[in-house]
Amino acid sequence: MPDQLFLGIDLGGTDTKYGIVDGGGRVLRRNRWPTEPERGPEGVLKQVAVHAREMIGADKVLAVGMGVPGPMSSRLGMVFEAPNLPGWVNVPVQKMLEDDLGLPVRLNNDANAAAWGEFRAGAGRGASTMILYTLGTGVGGGIIIEGELLCGPDDTAGELGHIVVNPEGPRCGCGNRGCLEAYASATAIRRRVREALAAGVRTSIVIPAGEEDTFGAKPVFEAAERGDVLASEIIAEAGRMLGLAAAGMINALNPDVIAYGGAMSQAGAILFDRIIGTAKANSFAKPFSRVRIVPGELGNDAGLIGAAGLAMRLAGGE
Amino acid sequence: MPDQLFLGIDLGGTDTKYGIVDGGGRVLRRNRWPTEPERGPEGVLKQVAVHAREMIGADKVLAVGMGVPGPMSSRLGMVFEAPNLPGWVNVPVQKMLEDDLGLPVRLNNDANAAAWGEFRAGAGRGASTMILYTLGTGVGGGIIIEGELLCGPDDTAGELGHIVVNPEGPRCGCGNRGCLEAYASATAIRRRVREALAAGVRTSIVIPAGEEDTFGAKPVFEAAERGDVLASEIIAEAGRMLGLAAAGMINALNPDVIAYGGAMSQAGAILFDRIIGTAKANSFAKPFSRVRIVPGELGNDAGLIGAAGLAMRLAGGE
Repeated sequence: MPDQLFLGIDLGGTDTKYGIVDGGGRVLRRNRWPTEPERGPEGVLKQVAVHAREMIGADKVLAVGMGVPGPMSSRLGMVFEAPNLPGWVNVPVQKMLEDDLGLPVRLNNDANAAAWGEFRAGAGRGASTMILYTLGTGVGGGIIIEGELLCGPDDTAGELGHIVVNPEGPRCGCGNRGCLEAYASATAIRRRVREALAAGVRTSIVIPAGEEDTFGAKPVFEAAERGDVLASEIIAEAGRMLGLAAAGMINALNPDVIAYGGAMSQAGAILFDRIIGTAKANSFAKPFSRVRIVPGELGNDAGLIGAAGLAMRLAGGE
Repeated sequence: MPDQLFLGIDLGGTDTKYGIVDGGGRVLRRNRWPTEPERGPEGVLKQVAVHAREMIGADKVLAVGMGVPGPMSSRLGMVFEAPNLPGWVNVPVQKMLEDDLGLPVRLNNDANAAAWGEFRAGAGRGASTMILYTLGTGVGGGIIIEGELLCGPDDTAGELGHIVVNPEGPRCGCGNRGCLEAYASATAIRRRVREALAAGVRTSIVIPAGEEDTFGAKPVFEAAERGDVLASEIIAEAGRMLGLAAAGMINALNPDVIAYGGAMSQAGAILFDRIIGTAKANSFAKPFSRVRIVPGELGNDAGLIGAAGLAMRLAGGE
């Protein structure tokens, strides 16, 4: 029902985003507050409830959905751990929030929530099977198969960042070689730029002052658009590996849509032409001709829209 | 219903297998006849109907399922083409057999049928999500997601052989580099042995007389078990690439079972230890600890049991 309301929450290590979302996936209002992880799980969740009530105000909200940044159980409503939230070990988030808010709560991991958001209200609208890659500090993902979010019995399905795309490739943060994340994350791109600079490669990539340890893909895309050789090579390699991964998904799952979220997904043709060309060359013609390979449409809202959408399913809203 | 009967047919380029299968996936009787592809589609399908009636005899069979070797539509019941069956272009197999037999008929591709067979009655019994790799002349596959065979809108899902596992790898028959099929098919193993022999590598691999162009993985496994260095290297590489592909599936789909059919799957520990070790090193601990990585249990019956199982669903038998 489009006139039903849900609260979507996207819990992050730094900020937490909140949105009042209607049954059609439209965000009626949104806000974000610092997560203040130093409060520990109980303190953080108390603050989340305070902000949730502030967002809800006098509205009638049917259920709350929340995307969380770490291994979790959607069935138990529990966060097992959260790398960016100190002290979070086996936290019964669903029960704690339900007790505090008096509303049904549903959890999923943040990448799955974002995938569900893009599927319901963004790049995957009207699709049946969709894959979302989230390209941020790391690479994550979510998979929708024939209209259903694939969580798997361990809620680990859709972990697309540490799939090996080149066994001869560079070392990944996880210790293995040639994971997709070792090519297509902001971390990987930063590493490539630094290695090249250390090796004396000439480049027009401009790293903003004070961002030597944190810069993302943006300055590299900007330099590539100016024709910078190093930047172009780095983007081409990321695009090629994303394209190989996409080709594998096309052959395995015959999806309607492969979408990309996160900051890197805004790079435009310089990245997408490469992804699409590589995917075409490495997949069967028939499923390739079906799939749309596109940037996500919801930007930073994907997670909270998806979380609200998962809450809607809980409430029987669809 | 275990006491209902179905006819499963596995249409091949050389022979076609037939089985009367009960609702529990047990083969009550089986037979095979030459396909005689030179008869063309109409002639072949007339013979199939003759053999089908012979198999059915006086039994009451509810429906017929058939696995076919080529691109097809399960919805239209049509075979678009079949590389090993000359003249097969857009053949309405389902309608032709239904008209001839007076029974409902369901088609799927042979690897999907085998996957459904192993899922219902073999290595995947009791599982929810299962992947089957078929390791034969080529490499194929089938995927069951939460109890449902994933066909995809183009009936191309589960094409697992031409997923690139090493972009720096050897050329595949399809023209790309480093497909799984370029490592783990009988064709690939034969190519590796020949290249090594041509380069003067010493090996104890014994190629049976007259089988220079057709030998499969068997003599290579036998030599590897005797400690032959070349044979061990070839098997280790095939196992490693199968393990990398399995790891990708474990991270993406969180399956209960990954099974392997085809002649190579009978190689035992020498292959499976390598697959499992590589899969473990390249996937997340939690989904890895769930998945069982095993040989198929149904051997050559997988396709006809699966085809019968798909017919059973058509007949509302489950």
